[in-house]
Amino acid sequence: MGKNLTPRNEDYSKWYNELVVQADLAENSAVRGCMVIKPYGYAIWEKMQAQLDKRFKETGHQNAYFPLFVPKSLFEAEEKNAEGFAKECAVVTHYRLKTDENNPGKLIVDPEAKLEEELVVRPTSEAIIWNTYKGWIQSYRDLPLLINQWANVVRWEMRTRLFLRTAEFLWQEGHTAHATREEALAETEQMNNIYAEFVENFMAIPVIKGAKTESERFAGAVETYCIEALMQDGKALQAGTSHFLGQNFAEAFDVKFTSKEGKQEYVWASSWGVSTRLMGALIMTHSDDKGLVLPPNLAPIQVVIVPIYRNDEQFNAISEEAKLLTEELRAVGISVKFDGRDTHKPGWKFAQYELQGVPLRIAIGPKDLENGTVELARRDTLTKEFVKREDVVAKAKGLMTEIQDTLLKKALDFRNDHITEVDDFKEFKKVLKNKGGFISAHWDGTTETEDRIKEYTKATIRCIPFNGKKEEGICVLTGKPSSQRVLFAKAY
Amino acid sequence: MGKNLTPRNEDYSKWYNELVVQADLAENSAVRGCMVIKPYGYAIWEKMQAQLDKRFKETGHQNAYFPLFVPKSLFEAEEKNAEGFAKECAVVTHYRLKTDENNPGKLIVDPEAKLEEELVVRPTSEAIIWNTYKGWIQSYRDLPLLINQWANVVRWEMRTRLFLRTAEFLWQEGHTAHATREEALAETEQMNNIYAEFVENFMAIPVIKGAKTESERFAGAVETYCIEALMQDGKALQAGTSHFLGQNFAEAFDVKFTSKEGKQEYVWASSWGVSTRLMGALIMTHSDDKGLVLPPNLAPIQVVIVPIYRNDEQFNAISEEAKLLTEELRAVGISVKFDGRDTHKPGWKFAQYELQGVPLRIAIGPKDLENGTVELARRDTLTKEFVKREDVVAKAKGLMTEIQDTLLKKALDFRNDHITEVDDFKEFKKVLKNKGGFISAHWDGTTETEDRIKEYTKATIRCIPFNGKKEEGICVLTGKPSSQRVLFAKAY
Repeated sequence: MGKNLTPRNEDYSKWYNELVVQADLAENSAVRGCMVIKPYGYAIWEKMQAQLDKRFKETGHQNAYFPLFVPKSLFEAEEKNAEGFAKECAVVTHYRLKTDENNPGKLIVDPEAKLEEELVVRPTSEAIIWNTYKGWIQSYRDLPLLINQWANVVRWEMRTRLFLRTAEFLWQEGHTAHATREEALAETEQMNNIYAEFVENFMAIPVIKGAKTESERFAGAVETYCIEALMQDGKALQAGTSHFLGQNFAEAFDVKFTSKEGKQEYVWASSWGVSTRLMGALIMTHSDDKGLVLPPNLAPIQVVIVPIYRNDEQFNAISEEAKLLTEELRAVGISVKFDGRDTHKPGWKFAQYELQGVPLRIAIGPKDLENGTVELARRDTLTKEFVKREDVVAKAKGLMTEIQDTLLKKALDFRNDHITEVDDFKEFKKVLKNKGGFISAHWDGTTETEDRIKEYTKATIRCIPFNGKKEEGICVLTGKPSSQRVLFAKAY
Repeated sequence: MGKNLTPRNEDYSKWYNELVVQADLAENSAVRGCMVIKPYGYAIWEKMQAQLDKRFKETGHQNAYFPLFVPKSLFEAEEKNAEGFAKECAVVTHYRLKTDENNPGKLIVDPEAKLEEELVVRPTSEAIIWNTYKGWIQSYRDLPLLINQWANVVRWEMRTRLFLRTAEFLWQEGHTAHATREEALAETEQMNNIYAEFVENFMAIPVIKGAKTESERFAGAVETYCIEALMQDGKALQAGTSHFLGQNFAEAFDVKFTSKEGKQEYVWASSWGVSTRLMGALIMTHSDDKGLVLPPNLAPIQVVIVPIYRNDEQFNAISEEAKLLTEELRAVGISVKFDGRDTHKPGWKFAQYELQGVPLRIAIGPKDLENGTVELARRDTLTKEFVKREDVVAKAKGLMTEIQDTLLKKALDFRNDHITEVDDFKEFKKVLKNKGGFISAHWDGTTETEDRIKEYTKATIRCIPFNGKKEEGICVLTGKPSSQRVLFAKAY
């Protein structure tokens, strides 16, 4: 365990960086911008994967796997997509290293092993997948095609931060093909809804569903839907996106199908993804100055049992009790760890499990054995109480739900407290500076105004919320007419 | 569904290539040597993953994720490992593309975005992982470190074949660190045993466990253990390997720990992996001229129900019955698909599910409804029988085990029939040519002899079997003394 964390109100960014490393979630690697996801962090990601994968399969999607590399000629086929990603892609140019004759033991790129065509390491897979779909789709009978891929992707970001922005990250990307515009749009919306439901119910993070403006859309998309979350420092975080791609990729890769009526038509498409970035959202929504706070639904360890003892005899008696309790808790579906290590003191262990966000801690000492009690400590509220041994299991089970609900409620209250309706640009800047959060304001609908607001304030339009009320008003910057408020915020 | 498969005895290699594509397992992509794993093939891989992952976790391993890229300076640190993989690695040299000024709409590598240090796309991850372990291991308390990674890797093979040898493939790679040589060796052996148990019990493929000779060892390993399977054409296939790495990587990356006695010592290591190559082994062990044969333990669909009908009334009545039967089968843990499509005839469907290796097919027609029967067809034996409706579920459940056992038994008999003891080099060549399979022969223990035999016959030493009887003899080529038979074969 490292030293104490920098308090959040002192330096939020520093707190985050320290927490990710000290809680054993991830660390920087020897490769610029690429992270190592450590076992504890990866265990949380695996839980997210399992839940998402289940939802994808329940809605008829199948997993598949497409190549890591995209030949340059395919990469450039859909122009906007290519333009959007060309500036930040890793390019493979050679397929062999050889010994440096001037420096034995060292290797150099073999100039004779230059590829005829360069390969781009996928920053996203629309190009390689739509080139493949061309061979899979002939008739309306082949549609819809509902496929998901779990994969690594690479985007050569210049300024990286663990989980939030890394050169390589893990994600899932769904790529679907449909016979009609309506079906593709319905799929786009369905997947955005699935993301929202998962993020709210498992990550305990409230999100706002909406559409991106043109300038914030995915490169190559006709519409981008998103879920936007709010972090504790008042900055927004895009937690997932679902894109309606129209016929753009079908046209770029010439993917047509024969309709029921016998006509040749271009296929309609969607794509959607969430990534290890969600780990950043999880951390910045719930955690505190003592470390990580994990919602029980995603905690790799839900309950930790720590023995308090002075001698072997006490340790053995407590261990026996802890073993029984562990079995009882596991029988009701709770994941438990008993930390009987003699290399660390209980105080050290308490701090460690607080740092790692284990939702519930049970301490058992000799007195507890006598009294038939245990000490139960909640990570989220940092409260402790003595509970009768016979009530522990029911209590713990109840707390799993209660803590999950409390975290969502708390995050929801914070988020709702940080949506401010503003009708004046001076106020806009003031709220953004002093309070942060989402600013709900009228906007004239032009990219030019959006760009100017971004230039003046660094705030961008996070989304045009789906549930926003229709309301006549005037643009907060230009005074031109507007029919709906949109949500501005500074964002990760 | 495509045309008929080329019969195995006509051209085994062609049969394999056709089967992989026609059964919808995988196909070649636009990227040389890289495959697309299609949903049906990926579903089988997912089942393998789930089983292996469970076994890894049960033996105390945790999953983590390390970068895709290895900086050249790390790649070359362990010399033998570097030498082994340098000849076939994809190298990233640039991090940006830009518009070709002479050819708008086309992109070229931006010469100004050249990396200071080239990045190798991981062909295996020892280098990047041991460079990371240096920061994780200080004391004997940090050991053992038991980590696994599910990932994609790239080896620029010149001659590729779907699943068997592809430029990119999916695998898992375990990387463990230990305080003693004995522990690392025990881990190496344990993981080889886990592979053998999984491959035999889930894939129904019998394997021989043994050690590789020096020339067949993993680059950088002190010992390589392996499991070797035999394909229907008499060629061997290495189905998994587990390496004892000694202190090679610890020395190369300076990973030391303080022992209980307070001494600084280099850490001992193992690494072990299986890959999507197992899919090739699965196909070539059980399948026949009609297509894939899948062991029930790995079949994505274990039972398919096909309705036989002439009109809507019949279809509705059969569908209702099929729905009930589906529920009953699922209740006993069997995965079922009802194929009620009206776009294909029953005969087409029968052929399709045979091609895709669905273990059990149930056909229900109007006569069956009258008689209270269904027609049950086994994929492995291609036998059919009528079964009373009330007996179907119990029968199907029993057959899941029986088919699994039958496939293993059949493969085991074939394998055992194809291990030939040979004591004379003329005989060696004759058996290899006419019968194939494993040749159990004495060898003088030198790489030179091994190389010469390979040169003369294309057969290599697949392994020195762990359970081989000790027996004095003379080398089949040189006549020099030998104390144990080894297994030779041509191999994939």
